[in-house]
Amino acid sequence: MLEELKIKVFKANLELVARGLVIHTWGNVSGRDKESGLIVIKPSGVSYESMKPEDMVIIDYEGKIVEGKFKPSTDAPTHLLLYKTYLSLGGIVHTHSSYATSWAQAGRSIPPFGTTHADHFSGEVPCTRLLTRIETEADYEINTGKIIIESLTTTDPMTVPSVLVNGHGPFCWGSDADAAVYNAVALEEIAKMAFYTVLLGKTEPISQFLLDKHFKRKHGNNAYYGQDKK
Amino acid sequence: MLEELKIKVFKANLELVARGLVIHTWGNVSGRDKESGLIVIKPSGVSYESMKPEDMVIIDYEGKIVEGKFKPSTDAPTHLLLYKTYLSLGGIVHTHSSYATSWAQAGRSIPPFGTTHADHFSGEVPCTRLLTRIETEADYEINTGKIIIESLTTTDPMTVPSVLVNGHGPFCWGSDADAAVYNAVALEEIAKMAFYTVLLGKTEPISQFLLDKHFKRKHGNNAYYGQDKK
Amino acid sequence: MLEELKIKVFKANLELVARGLVIHTWGNVSGRDKESGLIVIKPSGVSYESMKPEDMVIIDYEGKIVEGKFKPSTDAPTHLLLYKTYLSLGGIVHTHSSYATSWAQAGRSIPPFGTTHADHFSGEVPCTRLLTRIETEADYEINTGKIIIESLTTTDPMTVPSVLVNGHGPFCWGSDADAAVYNAVALEEIAKMAFYTVLLGKTEPISQFLLDKHFKRKHGNNAYYGQDKK
Amino acid sequence: MLEELKIKVFKANLELVARGLVIHTWGNVSGRDKESGLIVIKPSGVSYESMKPEDMVIIDYEGKIVEGKFKPSTDAPTHLLLYKTYLSLGGIVHTHSSYATSWAQAGRSIPPFGTTHADHFSGEVPCTRLLTRIETEADYEINTGKIIIESLTTTDPMTVPSVLVNGHGPFCWGSDADAAVYNAVALEEIAKMAFYTVLLGKTEPISQFLLDKHFKRKHGNNAYYGQDKK
Repeated sequence: MLEELKIKVFKANLELVARGLVIHTWGNVSGRDKESGLIVIKPSGVSYESMKPEDMVIIDYEGKIVEGKFKPSTDAPTHLLLYKTYLSLGGIVHTHSSYATSWAQAGRSIPPFGTTHADHFSGEVPCTRLLTRIETEADYEINTGKIIIESLTTTDPMTVPSVLVNGHGPFCWGSDADAAVYNAVALEEIAKMAFYTVLLGKTEPISQFLLDKHFKRKHGNNAYYGQDKK
Repeated sequence: MLEELKIKVFKANLELVARGLVIHTWGNVSGRDKESGLIVIKPSGVSYESMKPEDMVIIDYEGKIVEGKFKPSTDAPTHLLLYKTYLSLGGIVHTHSSYATSWAQAGRSIPPFGTTHADHFSGEVPCTRLLTRIETEADYEINTGKIIIESLTTTDPMTVPSVLVNGHGPFCWGSDADAAVYNAVALEEIAKMAFYTVLLGKTEPISQFLLDKHFKRKHGNNAYYGQDKK
Repeated sequence: MLEELKIKVFKANLELVARGLVIHTWGNVSGRDKESGLIVIKPSGVSYESMKPEDMVIIDYEGKIVEGKFKPSTDAPTHLLLYKTYLSLGGIVHTHSSYATSWAQAGRSIPPFGTTHADHFSGEVPCTRLLTRIETEADYEINTGKIIIESLTTTDPMTVPSVLVNGHGPFCWGSDADAAVYNAVALEEIAKMAFYTVLLGKTEPISQFLLDKHFKRKHGNNAYYGQDKK
Repeated sequence: MLEELKIKVFKANLELVARGLVIHTWGNVSGRDKESGLIVIKPSGVSYESMKPEDMVIIDYEGKIVEGKFKPSTDAPTHLLLYKTYLSLGGIVHTHSSYATSWAQAGRSIPPFGTTHADHFSGEVPCTRLLTRIETEADYEINTGKIIIESLTTTDPMTVPSVLVNGHGPFCWGSDADAAVYNAVALEEIAKMAFYTVLLGKTEPISQFLLDKHFKRKHGNNAYYGQDKK
């Protein structure tokens, strides 16, 4: 079942490798079937080289395996909590991409230093607080989802479709698996440029009006970037 | 019409991807037809993977679409103002290439730290001032062109064929689209080395006489770099 | 003899090149035959381009050549001492990969700055002390093995399967040659992110409980990362 | 004439591109014919994409073109002076490779921070002094050769086969064109790691005895790295 979505999620996972965002098994992509609400996700610890579309795992909102011969990604409970909380999410990506992860390791949010950032995020990409010992030792993956939600400062998760989990790495999302990967790629490049920018001595973000101008010319009600969608 | 120029501009756009200067839709190239004065430019927000030569948009000096089924790049008004102001320009490139954009985000001009810089630019690559709120909120793209022009300190735009727009990224130009891409590639490499050089503790540029020596042996009246052009 | 192991070690050596961990002849992989205890290792100073499986050298525990037309890697005595000391080792890798080597050159252990580190190493990746003049001038390669062993703070070498030799570079190991390469790839990426993290101002490692959580969910008795191994 | 050497020098030039050491026309390789003493060198400003073996230029010790339809590299006088001064040189390479050039731009010699450096250079890679205005304005390329020679602190140029020209970039050499490219590749990687090492806080080079140990086990009279050459 959901053969098309399995292929889409499979390809999205490989795209992470092709884009240089993951090595080994350091990442996972999932996608939600709008109709059934079922989630298709990468199997845990399976290498990208040997992975096939049919290896994708279908799980329900409780994390129960509906179809698939493998266990789902260890991070599945994090994905599920995000899907349950934000109904607009159609795809979620987790990577350990070098620059975004380094900001997460440093425990720093990524300030909007330029229009590239503003084209994709309406404000800083937040870094969560650290989990406590209790939150870490039990229900770790669910609690990871909880601090992601806690760290979102916007009511619409699509205006800043990425969060850095402190000491861990980025989670990104979008309207489907491809859009989530698209955002993960953008985040890594923006994290890289923010790193260089900081080393060049900048500490202040761009003005709110420049941030708004770029975000809205691309995503606002009167957006004029890109082609008309009919 | 202008089929040849459309192919040239199309290829120049793809060259940005091949050279690692742009991801997603973060860049655009335009070219001017010397005879008619018409501009061929990349369509807005169209992916490089699916783009074809016939998708290029032909616009006139007022930005009116002369031919093409797509809307032109959002940055078209910036390109147009530069073409109108500098008659020697035959091609313009805008990218968000990592290092050049990071200098722009830091609000810093790139000092001439070595002969590589001097081989391509007769002085520092200037970073513009920030746009005011008023300049940002209305006619943003035209005002971007205006501060580029304002920041040029040379009378001949070909002696420093690149500017960093503060908080945004580089604009480069040349005698045609290919030359503009050539300069964008050189700028990114020079921005990268300038970044490393700063981190190694250098603050002072090279001497004016070394700068002049290299720029002139390649571009001066008595240039002796390269082959004789007949 | 040991044709299969020779092919495995040969391929593991080439994998170092493919993964960007070595240039020229700056690396070597060896593997141990569990049954005979013989070691298969890369020949010294032979280029990766021209190398063939049959060029691999078979040596015994005393370093005597059992088969092969070439001299073994100069670092063979280091490999041998590690194999003799730790019976669980089935493969060893030495590289001069850029980031791991830079930490070694700086004489700094790599602190666990995030969960990527914790997924692979149960604590910091230690940097050895410097060899004395006497240790350097005679039996240099054996003494390199001795300080690697001296620097291990865990009783099980598999919990932190890498060491940085001060002023030199990393040695990594695993249950076989492939696993050792796998760890060398992970180490380089972790060293890179730790470098960025330090430049972003972080000095403290993650908490012991987060370190334990990630290491144990992947490698502990109750590990739940990956698929069940039957 | 010298068809074989022309092919060798041509291929060595392309190897610079393949190895990521040059973009555009930012580099050149030359080789010396041992018998005739003639030099084969890359033509000036010709793109690597279109270049053919027959485009290589043959010049004599005075820089006079012996064969070839193109002008030789602008840096030919620098190459010639080095060939005339050091009879052991069979090949010379000049690049603007990112890290080595950045050290040159910072005006800093590269200290021996580790054994990778010691495997290739018996001491620091020196950075020349700056040329004076007079030295720059007349006979610039010859004077570049003179300060390279001035900066060599060893009597045998093969023990440190690279120099950084202050504010400019690296010149490397070897027994032939391939060996010179080999050294240019090694230099760039060593410059990169030295850059990272400095950012990690290291200032002191490795001990003289570790430097000697590694250099001599590879290049000394009793070298035991690599295979016996008969």
